[in-house]
Amino acid sequence: MSSRVTVLIAVLALALPSHASAQTAADRGAELFIRKGCLGCHGASGRGGVGPVLAHTPLPFDSLLHQLRHPRGIMPPFPAEVVSDDEARAIHDYLRNAPPPPARLRSDVPHGSLAAESCIPCHTRLNPTIVRQFESSAMGRAGMQNPRVNYPQRQIGCANCHGLDHDKIMADRGRVPESMCGACHPAIYQEHVLDAGHSYGPGPGTLGTNWERNIGVPHYRQMPRKVMEMGCDACHAQAGASDDKYWSADQHRYVDTSSLPYRNGCIACHTRHSFSLEEARKPEACHTCHMGPDHPNYEAYESSKHGSIYSARGRSWDWTVPMPQASYETPTCAYCHMLYVDSTGTRHTSHNMTRKIIWGMGVQPAVGQLADITVSPENQAKRNEMIKVCITCHSEDKARGYLESADAHKLAGDALVIEARSILSGLYKDGVIKPSHEQMSAGLLRGPAFSAVELPGAIAQHSPASLYYDVSPIEREYFDMFFFSALKSYKGAFHMSPDYAWWYGYADVLGHLARIRDDAKRLRSERDVRRQTLFMIFTGPLMVLAVIGAVAWVRRRRVARGVGAV
Amino acid sequence: MSSRVTVLIAVLALALPSHASAQTAADRGAELFIRKGCLGCHGASGRGGVGPVLAHTPLPFDSLLHQLRHPRGIMPPFPAEVVSDDEARAIHDYLRNAPPPPARLRSDVPHGSLAAESCIPCHTRLNPTIVRQFESSAMGRAGMQNPRVNYPQRQIGCANCHGLDHDKIMADRGRVPESMCGACHPAIYQEHVLDAGHSYGPGPGTLGTNWERNIGVPHYRQMPRKVMEMGCDACHAQAGASDDKYWSADQHRYVDTSSLPYRNGCIACHTRHSFSLEEARKPEACHTCHMGPDHPNYEAYESSKHGSIYSARGRSWDWTVPMPQASYETPTCAYCHMLYVDSTGTRHTSHNMTRKIIWGMGVQPAVGQLADITVSPENQAKRNEMIKVCITCHSEDKARGYLESADAHKLAGDALVIEARSILSGLYKDGVIKPSHEQMSAGLLRGPAFSAVELPGAIAQHSPASLYYDVSPIEREYFDMFFFSALKSYKGAFHMSPDYAWWYGYADVLGHLARIRDDAKRLRSERDVRRQTLFMIFTGPLMVLAVIGAVAWVRRRRVARGVGAV
Amino acid sequence: MSSRVTVLIAVLALALPSHASAQTAADRGAELFIRKGCLGCHGASGRGGVGPVLAHTPLPFDSLLHQLRHPRGIMPPFPAEVVSDDEARAIHDYLRNAPPPPARLRSDVPHGSLAAESCIPCHTRLNPTIVRQFESSAMGRAGMQNPRVNYPQRQIGCANCHGLDHDKIMADRGRVPESMCGACHPAIYQEHVLDAGHSYGPGPGTLGTNWERNIGVPHYRQMPRKVMEMGCDACHAQAGASDDKYWSADQHRYVDTSSLPYRNGCIACHTRHSFSLEEARKPEACHTCHMGPDHPNYEAYESSKHGSIYSARGRSWDWTVPMPQASYETPTCAYCHMLYVDSTGTRHTSHNMTRKIIWGMGVQPAVGQLADITVSPENQAKRNEMIKVCITCHSEDKARGYLESADAHKLAGDALVIEARSILSGLYKDGVIKPSHEQMSAGLLRGPAFSAVELPGAIAQHSPASLYYDVSPIEREYFDMFFFSALKSYKGAFHMSPDYAWWYGYADVLGHLARIRDDAKRLRSERDVRRQTLFMIFTGPLMVLAVIGAVAWVRRRRVARGVGAV
Repeated sequence: MSSRVTVLIAVLALALPSHASAQTAADRGAELFIRKGCLGCHGASGRGGVGPVLAHTPLPFDSLLHQLRHPRGIMPPFPAEVVSDDEARAIHDYLRNAPPPPARLRSDVPHGSLAAESCIPCHTRLNPTIVRQFESSAMGRAGMQNPRVNYPQRQIGCANCHGLDHDKIMADRGRVPESMCGACHPAIYQEHVLDAGHSYGPGPGTLGTNWERNIGVPHYRQMPRKVMEMGCDACHAQAGASDDKYWSADQHRYVDTSSLPYRNGCIACHTRHSFSLEEARKPEACHTCHMGPDHPNYEAYESSKHGSIYSARGRSWDWTVPMPQASYETPTCAYCHMLYVDSTGTRHTSHNMTRKIIWGMGVQPAVGQLADITVSPENQAKRNEMIKVCITCHSEDKARGYLESADAHKLAGDALVIEARSILSGLYKDGVIKPSHEQMSAGLLRGPAFSAVELPGAIAQHSPASLYYDVSPIEREYFDMFFFSALKSYKGAFHMSPDYAWWYGYADVLGHLARIRDDAKRLRSERDVRRQTLFMIFTGPLMVLAVIGAVAWVRRRRVARGVGAV
Repeated sequence: MSSRVTVLIAVLALALPSHASAQTAADRGAELFIRKGCLGCHGASGRGGVGPVLAHTPLPFDSLLHQLRHPRGIMPPFPAEVVSDDEARAIHDYLRNAPPPPARLRSDVPHGSLAAESCIPCHTRLNPTIVRQFESSAMGRAGMQNPRVNYPQRQIGCANCHGLDHDKIMADRGRVPESMCGACHPAIYQEHVLDAGHSYGPGPGTLGTNWERNIGVPHYRQMPRKVMEMGCDACHAQAGASDDKYWSADQHRYVDTSSLPYRNGCIACHTRHSFSLEEARKPEACHTCHMGPDHPNYEAYESSKHGSIYSARGRSWDWTVPMPQASYETPTCAYCHMLYVDSTGTRHTSHNMTRKIIWGMGVQPAVGQLADITVSPENQAKRNEMIKVCITCHSEDKARGYLESADAHKLAGDALVIEARSILSGLYKDGVIKPSHEQMSAGLLRGPAFSAVELPGAIAQHSPASLYYDVSPIEREYFDMFFFSALKSYKGAFHMSPDYAWWYGYADVLGHLARIRDDAKRLRSERDVRRQTLFMIFTGPLMVLAVIGAVAWVRRRRVARGVGAV
Repeated sequence: MSSRVTVLIAVLALALPSHASAQTAADRGAELFIRKGCLGCHGASGRGGVGPVLAHTPLPFDSLLHQLRHPRGIMPPFPAEVVSDDEARAIHDYLRNAPPPPARLRSDVPHGSLAAESCIPCHTRLNPTIVRQFESSAMGRAGMQNPRVNYPQRQIGCANCHGLDHDKIMADRGRVPESMCGACHPAIYQEHVLDAGHSYGPGPGTLGTNWERNIGVPHYRQMPRKVMEMGCDACHAQAGASDDKYWSADQHRYVDTSSLPYRNGCIACHTRHSFSLEEARKPEACHTCHMGPDHPNYEAYESSKHGSIYSARGRSWDWTVPMPQASYETPTCAYCHMLYVDSTGTRHTSHNMTRKIIWGMGVQPAVGQLADITVSPENQAKRNEMIKVCITCHSEDKARGYLESADAHKLAGDALVIEARSILSGLYKDGVIKPSHEQMSAGLLRGPAFSAVELPGAIAQHSPASLYYDVSPIEREYFDMFFFSALKSYKGAFHMSPDYAWWYGYADVLGHLARIRDDAKRLRSERDVRRQTLFMIFTGPLMVLAVIGAVAWVRRRRVARGVGAV
C-alpha cells in the first residue's frame, strides 16, 4: 500500500473511532435505535426528549414491545413491518445497557422557597453574564425606566418574574411565559400575542399563530422531533407557543409534540436578560427567523440599497430613542412593519407586525390562485398604511409605483408557477407519475396514517409542508420552484433587492420551469419507449405466430380449393 | 375529515381569499391579463407602467383588438395564436370593469412656480427624512463645504437642482438627471459618465454603458418589463441611463422599454438626500449591484481576509478623510478600483472605475475564447496600475504573484467551460438537441421575431442573456456552469475568497461538467434506444413478412423445379 | 442584420479581442498550454508557479519532451495519449516566443546587510500602510505592551523578525515562519502549532494538521496547483505549513506541491502588520476559512441569535480586554472554542481550539458509521468543558439539553446519508454504475496512477476529496448530500441557526435522498429497457427463423408421414 493511501486512510480514520470495525449485537441495537428514528423523540442514546428517557431502562422487553405496537400518548405506532420483533429486541438489549444520562455538573441545588436577595449572589457565581445583563437592563436598574409601565415596585428583581420556589423554577427550567411580560406590558401583549400580531393573522378559527401552523400540520408530526427542535420549532415558537394550553403545570413541561424545553415569545426579539431595546430595534433582531430559501427577507433587505445604507451608516444613529421620535437614514425591518403615520404626520408604533401585510407568505399560486389580491378594499387600506411610511422618505408616486410594480412582478412569477402546476397535474392525470410515490413525509412510518393523498383534492401535494419529502424529482423541482425561487423572487422585489428579485428569484423560477417542461416530456417519452418495448416483447412472437398462422390458413384454403396440388 | 386535515386546509385557506372557488367571466379575464403577460407593461390590474393605464378603460373592444394585432409604439404584436379574439374579449370585459388606479393620498398639491423658501416647510411635514438629510448634507449646509466646487452660491437649496415649477417637478416625479450633478462636478461627470467609467468600457460604438447593454439586447425586450424593473434595470440604470436621448421632455417620462420612473446615476452610490461621502466610500455602497450568482464581488470581498478586516475594524477608521489621504487597514472596493498611485507614491482617485479592469465580466470562454489576454501591452499596463495599489500594503512580488495565479485559475476554469461548450456543439451538430427548443426567451411571444437563432453563428445561444429561458436542461446546466460557477470561481480568486474560488466556483464548475458529460451520454443513449425501438416496431412485421415471403418464394421455386410435388 | 443584432454582437465583441478569429499556430500552442493543464504549475503564459518559469524558455524541444514523458521532481508524467508529440511541439513553439515575465516595477532594490534604522524610511515610501500598522501595533510601540512576553528589548523593530540581510529577505519574500512568533509566545506556539490545536487533532502519526490533510491526500496532487493556491491551500496553510520540513533554506522556497509563496500560521488571525487583538478576538477573524457549503460555521453563527446579538451590539463591547476578563453579551467563535472555566468559575483561554470538539468535520456516515460517538468518556469530558462555557449565560439543563438534541439531529441526518450510501453500493454491486467512471479526479491525468479504486474497500469513493470530480450524477448527488447538506444540517444545529439546521441542511438532505432514490430506479429501469431492446433486436430475427424452422420441420414431418401430399 502506497504512502499516499496510508495518508488518506489515516485521514478518514480520524473520524472513525476504533470500535467501528466489527458490528456487535449492542452496536446493532444502537444503530437500529438511530435508523428507525427512535432518537427523534427519545434522544441520542435514549437520553430523552419529547419522549421519556430510555437509556438504562428497567422496562421489560414485553412492555417496550407493547408500547411500540400499541402506544399510549402521542407516540405513533410502529408495526412489525417497520420494526420487527427481532429488531425491537436488539434495541431493547442496547437500551438496557446504554449508559444513563450524564449527571449534572452541579448537583448542590438549593430547595424550597428562597429569599429574593439570595438569587443574585449565587447566580453571579454560576451564570455571571445573565446577572450582569439583567442588572444593566431597563428592568434591573433602580427606578422605573419605562414611564408607560404601571408597576407597584420601583425596581424589579429575579423573583418578580421567576417566583421564589426554587424547586418549581428548576422543574420549569426557569420558564417565564409571555403572559408574565404581558402583565406589565398589556398593550404590547394584546397587539403581539392576542391579536396574533407576530404571525400572519388573525386567521380563521384557532389559526393565525406560528406555533399552531407548526405543530398542527399533519406532516410535521411525522418529522423527527429533535430535528424540528433544531429547525422549524425554534422560530415558530413565537406568540402563543407558551400558552397554558400547551403547558402542563403538573408535569412542568410542554405536552405537545415539540421537545422544546421552553419557548420564545417576547424574548425572541428582546433577548434575555438584557432585554435591549437597541437590539430589538435593529434588523438583526429579525435575522434568525426571517431568512433562508423560502423567505429571505433579511438577505433581501441587507442586500438592498436600504440595507446597505443601514450597514454603512446605522451604527451612528441614536438607538436609545423610540422609533416614532428617531431619525433613521434608511428604514429598518421595524420601521416599515411596525410604524404607523397618521394624517397629521404623527408617528406611532404597534407590536402587531402584520397589519400592513398583503401577500403574506406568497403561496397563492400553490393553491391554484392567479389573481391580483391587492384590489380588495381591505388590501388597498393596508397598502395605504405602508405608503404613508414610505412617504417619510419618498414621494407618494415613487412609493406607490414601486409597490405596484412589485405586485406585477409577483404575479408574473405566479403565472409561471401555475404553468408548472398544470404540467404536474397532467402527469398525475395521465398516470405518468403517482402523487408522492412510496410515502408522503420524511417521518418515521410509511402508510396512509398521515398520508396527504387522503386530503380532499390532494391539495396537500402542493402545500409547503408536504412536497419535499419522498417525492419524484419533478415534484421536488416544482417544490423548489414555488417555495424557494418564487418566494425569493417576490420577497426580493418587495424588499428592494434586484438580485433576489431576478437571479435568485425570477430567473431561477425560469430555470426550474425549463427543467419541469423537459422532465415532463422525458417522463412521457420514457413511458412510451417502455410501452413500445414491452409491446414488442409480448407482441413480437405473437405477430410471428399470427403471420405464420395466416400463411398456413391461406395455404390450407388454397389446398382446400385445390390450388396447391400442382 | 380528521381534525388535522381541517387544520391543514385552514392553513392553506389563509392564503386563499373566498372568491377563489368558482371562476367567473371577470375572473377569467383577470387571469388571462396576468397569464398572457399584459401586466408586464400595463401593471397589475392594468394600473399602468411602461404601457398606459388600462384599468377602467373607455377603449372600445375593436380598438383594443386592433392595438393587440397591429400595435403602435414599442408594444409587440400579439397574434391570434397567442391571444385569441375570445380571450381578448374576456380581457377587455375585465379591464372595463377593473377599478381605476387608487387616488393619491394627498391631492392638495400646489401648482405653478413657487418660492424657493416654500419647499422646506411643506416637505418637512410631508417627507421629513429627506429634508433633514439634505439639511445635514455637504450641499445643504451653509458655506461651500467642497473647495473643489465652483458655484456662485454659498449654500444651495432644493430649487437649485429641482427648479421652481412645481407642476413640472410633479410631472417629472422629482427627477434630477446626472448632468445636473455634472454641472458642479464636471471632472467626475467626465470620468464616470462620459468616459463610461462605471461600466466596462468605453466600448465600441454606442456601447460601454450598463444601460445600453440592458435595454439594447434583444432578449431583454421580450422580458416582462415590470420584472426587469424589479431586477436588472434597477442596477443597469447607471451612467448614461438618464441621458436626454431616453427622456422625453414633452411627455415627462422615459420613452424606452423600461418602466423605471427615474434612474440612477450619481445617486446609486451617493444616495439622496444625504449624499454621504462615508456611505459612498464604504464597500456597502457597491453591495446591491455587485453581488449575486454571476458576479459575487461583494460576497467574495466580504468573506475574504480583506473584507473580514474591514468588518472587524473598519468602523473605527476616519471616513471623513478623502481616500488619497486616508489610512485604511485593508482595502475597500473603492480603494482597489478608484485609487491611483504615481511613481512618487502620491495617491489620487478617479470616478472611472474600469481603468484597471482586465477580465471584465469574464465571459471569454462563452464566446469560444481560451487565451491569456493579460499578455497584451495595454493589459500589462492595467495590471501595473493595480499592483501599485497593492504595494501600499504588500510587496510587489506577493501582489504580482497572487494576481498571476488568479489569472491561471481563471484560465483553468475557462478550459472546463470550453470542454462543456464543445460537448453541447456536438449534440447540436448530431441533432440530439435542438438549439433552445420551442422559444428563445422568457418573453411574451413565441416565434422568430426576437429569436436568437437568427443571429449569425447562433452565437447568442451562449450569451448570458439568452441561455436560461426555455432551454433543455443540459443547456441550462451549461449556462449555470459558465455564467454562475465559472464567474464565481474567477471573481472569488481575484477578490481573495478561497471558498468562492473553490467550493462555490471551481468545484461547482466540475460538478456541472460531470453532469453535462453524463447528460450528453444519456441523451445519446436514449436516442439510440428510441431509434432501436422504433426500428423494431416498424421492421419487426416487415422482417416477418420478408422471411415468410422468402420461404414462400423458395417453396415456389422448389415447386416449380418439381421438388415439392412429392 | 437588424440593429439589435448588431448591438448584441457588439456586446459580445467587448469580451472578444480582435485576434480571436482565426487560430494561428502560436494560438494553438497557447490554447494547448491551458487546456492540457500546464499552467496549473507553470502559470498563465508560463510565468511560473510551483513549476519553473517556461515563458521565453531556451529549453530545446527534446529536453521539454523528455521532461514531459519522464519528469524529474514532483511533476507527474504526461504520456503521449494525453499530450501528443505534435501537441508538445506546438506548446514548445508557443513557449519559446511567449513574452518573459514582466519586470518588477521597482528594480532599485538594496543589497547586503542593512542597518536596522534603514527599514522604516524606505518602506514608508514603498508600503506606507504596513509601516503605519506595525508602528501602531503592540509590538511596534515603545515599551513592552504584553507583560507575558519575556524579551530583552523593550521595543522591537522590523529586523527582530525579518533579519537584516536584505537579499535573503527578498529571496524569502519576507517570510517569517510561525516558529519566529513562537520564540516570544511559547505557550501559544505549543497549544496552537505543536499540539495541532488549530486543526482537528492531534491525529494519529503525522496527521492532525490542516496542511498535511491538504497536500498529503492523493486527489489533491492531481488538481491544478494554481487553483489550489486560490482555493484550498489558502486556508489549509495553517499550523505546521510553514515548518522547516516543507521549506528549503537553500532555494528560499517551499518544495512541496503548493505554489503558495508563503504561508499562514499566526498571521491567519493576527493579520500583519497590525497584529490586532480586537480583530483576532472577533468572529470575522474566522470567517474566511470557516465558511462555505461544507462547513458554514460562520454563516450559521452569524444567522443564529448569538450572531445576531453580536452584529447588533458587539461594536459597543470593550475589545481591548482579554477574553477571560471581558463582558460579552453573546458568545463569539473564540468564546466557545477557546475559553475554559474551572470549578471555581475562573476563566482562562487556550490557543488549542479543538479540545472541546466532538464531531469534528462530521463525516462519520461517509465512512459507514452510524453511532452516537458522544457516549465515550473522553467525549463526555469534552462536552462538559463546553457546557461550562454555556453556563456562563445559560442554565446547565438548557445547555446540555440543547447540545444533546443537536447530537440527535446530527444522527438523524446521518441515517439518511447511510441510506443513500447503501443505494449507491447496490448500484455498484449490480454493475448499474461503475465507481467513478473514466477518471477519478479533476487532475491532469487519466488512468490508475492516482485512482482511488485501488484503495482497499474503495473507501475513497466516499471521501470528501474524491467524489466531486468525474463521477456520475447520482454519485455527485450523494457527494452534495453528505458533504454539503448533511454538514450544513449539523453545523447549523450546533451553531444554533434554525435555517441551516433545517432548510439548508436536513430538508436539503431529504431533497438529495429523493433524487438518489429516484435516480437509482431510473438507472435500473433504463438498463432494463436497454437490455430488452437489445434482446429484441437480436432475438427478433432469431425468433422468426425459429418459428419458420419449426413450421418447416413440422411440415417436413407431416410430409414424411404422408400427411401433406394431399
